[in-house]
Amino acid sequence: MATPFAEDTRVVPAGPGRWSAVLTDRWDISVPNGGYVLCVALAAVREALEQPHPLVVSAHYLGTCVHGPACVDVTVLKRGRSLSTAFATLSQDDRGRVTVLATYGDLRASTGPTLVSVQPPELPPPAECAFIGDRPAGGFSQRPAIAERVDFRPSPATARALVGRGGPACLEGWLRLAEGDAVSADHLPLLVDASPPAVFAALQTGWVPTIELTVHVRGVPAPGWLRARIETRVIVDGALEEDCTLWDCDGQVVAMSRQLARVLPPAPG
Amino acid sequence: MATPFAEDTRVVPAGPGRWSAVLTDRWDISVPNGGYVLCVALAAVREALEQPHPLVVSAHYLGTCVHGPACVDVTVLKRGRSLSTAFATLSQDDRGRVTVLATYGDLRASTGPTLVSVQPPELPPPAECAFIGDRPAGGFSQRPAIAERVDFRPSPATARALVGRGGPACLEGWLRLAEGDAVSADHLPLLVDASPPAVFAALQTGWVPTIELTVHVRGVPAPGWLRARIETRVIVDGALEEDCTLWDCDGQVVAMSRQLARVLPPAPG
Repeated sequence: MATPFAEDTRVVPAGPGRWSAVLTDRWDISVPNGGYVLCVALAAVREALEQPHPLVVSAHYLGTCVHGPACVDVTVLKRGRSLSTAFATLSQDDRGRVTVLATYGDLRASTGPTLVSVQPPELPPPAECAFIGDRPAGGFSQRPAIAERVDFRPSPATARALVGRGGPACLEGWLRLAEGDAVSADHLPLLVDASPPAVFAALQTGWVPTIELTVHVRGVPAPGWLRARIETRVIVDGALEEDCTLWDCDGQVVAMSRQLARVLPPAPG
Repeated sequence: MATPFAEDTRVVPAGPGRWSAVLTDRWDISVPNGGYVLCVALAAVREALEQPHPLVVSAHYLGTCVHGPACVDVTVLKRGRSLSTAFATLSQDDRGRVTVLATYGDLRASTGPTLVSVQPPELPPPAECAFIGDRPAGGFSQRPAIAERVDFRPSPATARALVGRGGPACLEGWLRLAEGDAVSADHLPLLVDASPPAVFAALQTGWVPTIELTVHVRGVPAPGWLRARIETRVIVDGALEEDCTLWDCDGQVVAMSRQLARVLPPAPG
């Protein structure tokens, strides 16, 4: 049986270099989540390329997506033996909404040194990690639909920071697909963007729309919970970067992402 | 009088959405530096867009560039009031070499909160900062041409690490254009990629070719030296990320970049 992610990122050939898709309401943060929309575009890219893994994908968001039909146009820029690169644009009503450069490869074919100086967050068991009250939603509906599909369990310290604000803009917690669906490399561009924004631990803000999101997929995740650290260090005149690092349950870094986003003022009331 | 950067990134209209350029040998790290080639592509993007500043640019490197003629094809994907986005590909001999998504805006028009939790490195004065012996060149010529154009002055600790290797993959130092040419926002995508790779402080390696480089331009630099921190935290099977943060002499973060690159083995001998 297809998982919700597989169903909601399905693409169907619609012409040379073109695929059609339907954006559902199951991954909303009031509007379709940027990581979800990126994964729909990447589903078409994967059809166009031979390599299995999205090693690095860069998405620039041109406009907000809506529920309903979308089409993805893919141009292959390079077909290499080890790396291939494609350019893709997801459009709705003939307007580009998200545009992507994606370089695919095979993570299992990489060879060379390994040296890691970051440690995953130390967390109590998932059963002891939960939001205090509602998941913060940046002035929109109290519980976004994506919270039914992606299970983010903040550490106790992070849960407190999301209520009190005023702390460092850093979130730590467990992360998995809801219903425990197995996580593959294809899910990671969604999962790096599926928790609340880290700035919610520091400031009372409204929505934090993404301008650009780049994801490095560094490993194929082992089955089980992921651990996440999401951090913002530099907020200047309302613009911020957010870095997310994901570790699998073996302690291996499987994804690193950075996005540029804007902080909007808190919703009135 | 035009600076070397202005001369070497000059683009000339060559048809609808097309500009021609010439890649010179003055920014070599044996081959033309990836940041330099990106700036040539961005010179054409800037001609195509109204906004003045490259807020976020994502470059995927398809192949090595050579000295000589190049052409840049630019497609404008969005012309917005505050943000515009273009897709550009720099080609030589009809083969794409670097492909870019670039979102331009006006840094002076940003409004919103400011909250910064990173500090610039503490450094002795530039006159007391220098490489010990030759600048490490990853198995190529002992002193790359780019060292004549970009003045990177490693801190004493960084200079020692670049000789001893085996330390953390972190470089700190002063950075400016050679001859003290004024640094604008347009130079920052070059400068984030113009020092030796941070991995040189940790491992004996060969060349470190960039697969992808994303640059967030966060401020217009004040005149004077920049301070740089360049850091690699996760090397897995020869793949690494490298983060660069640049501060101007007022202590303002002006650029944050991340690249995905590969570590090649040391050159024999």
